[in-house]
Amino acid sequence: MLHSIEEQLLIIRRGTVDIIPEDELLRKLERSIEENKPLKIKLGCDPSRPDLHIGHSVVLRKLRQFQDIGHEAILVIGDFTGMIGDPTGKNKTRPSLSLEETRHNGKSYFEQASKILDPAKTKIVYNSEWLAPMTFADVVKMASMYTVARMLERDDFQNRYRNSEPISVHEFLYPLAQAMDSVALASDVELGGTDQRFNLLVGRDLQKEYGQEPQVIITMPLLEGTDGVQKMSKSLNNYVGIDDAPKEMFGRIMSIPDSLIYKYFELTTNISIAELETVKKDLENKSVNPSLLKRKLAMEIIALYHDKLSAERAEEEFDLIFKKKDVPEDVPIFSVTADEMTMVKLLTLTKLVDSGNEARRQIQQGAVSLNGQKITDDRLNVKLDGDLILKVGKRKFLKIVKKT
Amino acid sequence: MLHSIEEQLLIIRRGTVDIIPEDELLRKLERSIEENKPLKIKLGCDPSRPDLHIGHSVVLRKLRQFQDIGHEAILVIGDFTGMIGDPTGKNKTRPSLSLEETRHNGKSYFEQASKILDPAKTKIVYNSEWLAPMTFADVVKMASMYTVARMLERDDFQNRYRNSEPISVHEFLYPLAQAMDSVALASDVELGGTDQRFNLLVGRDLQKEYGQEPQVIITMPLLEGTDGVQKMSKSLNNYVGIDDAPKEMFGRIMSIPDSLIYKYFELTTNISIAELETVKKDLENKSVNPSLLKRKLAMEIIALYHDKLSAERAEEEFDLIFKKKDVPEDVPIFSVTADEMTMVKLLTLTKLVDSGNEARRQIQQGAVSLNGQKITDDRLNVKLDGDLILKVGKRKFLKIVKKT
Repeated sequence: MLHSIEEQLLIIRRGTVDIIPEDELLRKLERSIEENKPLKIKLGCDPSRPDLHIGHSVVLRKLRQFQDIGHEAILVIGDFTGMIGDPTGKNKTRPSLSLEETRHNGKSYFEQASKILDPAKTKIVYNSEWLAPMTFADVVKMASMYTVARMLERDDFQNRYRNSEPISVHEFLYPLAQAMDSVALASDVELGGTDQRFNLLVGRDLQKEYGQEPQVIITMPLLEGTDGVQKMSKSLNNYVGIDDAPKEMFGRIMSIPDSLIYKYFELTTNISIAELETVKKDLENKSVNPSLLKRKLAMEIIALYHDKLSAERAEEEFDLIFKKKDVPEDVPIFSVTADEMTMVKLLTLTKLVDSGNEARRQIQQGAVSLNGQKITDDRLNVKLDGDLILKVGKRKFLKIVKKT
Repeated sequence: MLHSIEEQLLIIRRGTVDIIPEDELLRKLERSIEENKPLKIKLGCDPSRPDLHIGHSVVLRKLRQFQDIGHEAILVIGDFTGMIGDPTGKNKTRPSLSLEETRHNGKSYFEQASKILDPAKTKIVYNSEWLAPMTFADVVKMASMYTVARMLERDDFQNRYRNSEPISVHEFLYPLAQAMDSVALASDVELGGTDQRFNLLVGRDLQKEYGQEPQVIITMPLLEGTDGVQKMSKSLNNYVGIDDAPKEMFGRIMSIPDSLIYKYFELTTNISIAELETVKKDLENKSVNPSLLKRKLAMEIIALYHDKLSAERAEEEFDLIFKKKDVPEDVPIFSVTADEMTMVKLLTLTKLVDSGNEARRQIQQGAVSLNGQKITDDRLNVKLDGDLILKVGKRKFLKIVKKT
């Protein structure tokens, strides 16, 4: 059962950056209703990313919304393109993965994405299915349809070319291979982050060259991480993982800057458009303490990936640590993998101090505390089990979390 | 039986532009003698050229010289790469040929090349043999070994990119495919015209990447056509075809400018290095009439593609037309395909006059003659069978030749 065009557009437009071109989307939606035939919505995933976080969820959630209004979600596991390695946004030629590695990662990707998508209604395809059998002659034909100049228009290629950083010739084959996915699937719409805009447009072009009606492309914003500055990423440790435990999620979400509250609500939760408006007004009027809005945000997100009860427990636990120990609620989080570490090393690693000498001096001056307890032994070895609140001086706080 | 290194080098160096790197060539020759194992000499041919002329013979003759000193000649028919179309020196993206077309042309190429090579000792291979079975993954691997920046260093690509003329992405695959031929054959030496320098060097690079000893590359000059200005080419009608009849060859060779005599002797005949020196001195000292040197050149070339007797007959026939009719021996040649044509059209087509009006005026003034006979009828229809000497005024001559 497809919704009315107006209802559909309201849902589709939420949080998008580009819909190119919008009139073609409208025509596709109209035809889909007339013929009672769902649109094919394509989302490609790069299986070189092993763990999903709520930054990845932004496009997956858009795909889910298309499912909810009756369209067909196609998740393309880029096991073949993963071997090439998407050069998007990279300033280096990337090492290639094997087909085995990309397939293994792809499986794990889908398991995690199933928390967001309706797995029973999701069509999963591996692009090695049509890309692996392509011969050199097929590649020549495909590559003849795009010019070097247009490839070099892509920002990251252009920057690298100008800065004399190497671009390998095979990297030009990536956008074309991804575009061939659209040809193979005859997709109606392709979703992606704004950094995928170029690649998605190549899909349109290639579909035209192969005599198909071109797909509409829809781009979504890249979500900043909990630091509020850089794109969410595991390696920057500014992420909220969709497999994270509730209390971990709660702490991380409470640490985001106020400026991101609205964006997180819009892109990572299911609250209605009316509720979104209220959040916006609350922030503009400063009528509600932002920390309350962050609590609501954390509850919403945790309820999505766990359940409401877990969310409430996480909040209680959070309060036990923070409210009662006079720790600010938006304390930043630092993840460690080691089981134990000297206090001096911990202080320098987390950059709470600039040097080992400063660490020792601060400890000797009684300026360092762990979970509210003053540390005096500058040779202390800290067991890194469970969450720890580390404090230096009056205002520097950090929550140390064991990476699992 | 391999010749001594000194003998070999003398023959190999004749007429070459580049030997890169010469010390590696020396080592390969030494090892070849030690192990009594001929070197593999590769020459790729582009089967999109249907008819060979003595411009093409320059590299083929170098390959023949390698055969004569005991090495293995491998002629690579680029039936696969012909589908891509060599972009070298082209300022446009080229239309692709089918594998059937390129194979058909390749067969004809070899038949013609057999006049220059020792066919029994020539290994003929079609590069579709190893390129056609390559999969997309193989192409990705190959393309990962070369950067976009290095491709764009190639003159013709660079010019086109700067002038905003389109370069299709598949054109970057051409030099790589040609380089794969060297990998597939494990060639020791690759020959080519100077315009192939870049492509041949890519072969070296790719062989290294695939763990092979890199080939030495040897480039030969591009031969100017009979006009003395532009590269010899059928479309510019400044060529001497290796299938041309003796008298056709004789006339065309007599039409070259004196400045090309030495180069033609060096690159297109078998005269010895000692004789070459004599030609050089004769030209420098002006001790011999250049037209006598051209006669000798024509005799040498005709003897190569026909025989000595045919060469002598061609000279006699030439004298019949030219000497007795007081026509200069280096009269330029113009080819036509039509069976007949009005005199006015012929005069304008050949650009002997600027307009139809001028043609009629010249005829009326009695300034036009055909084979020594004055023309007075400005409506004359000329039958274009056999060779015709057309003259306008006192000094403008043209030999009209029927294109076969």
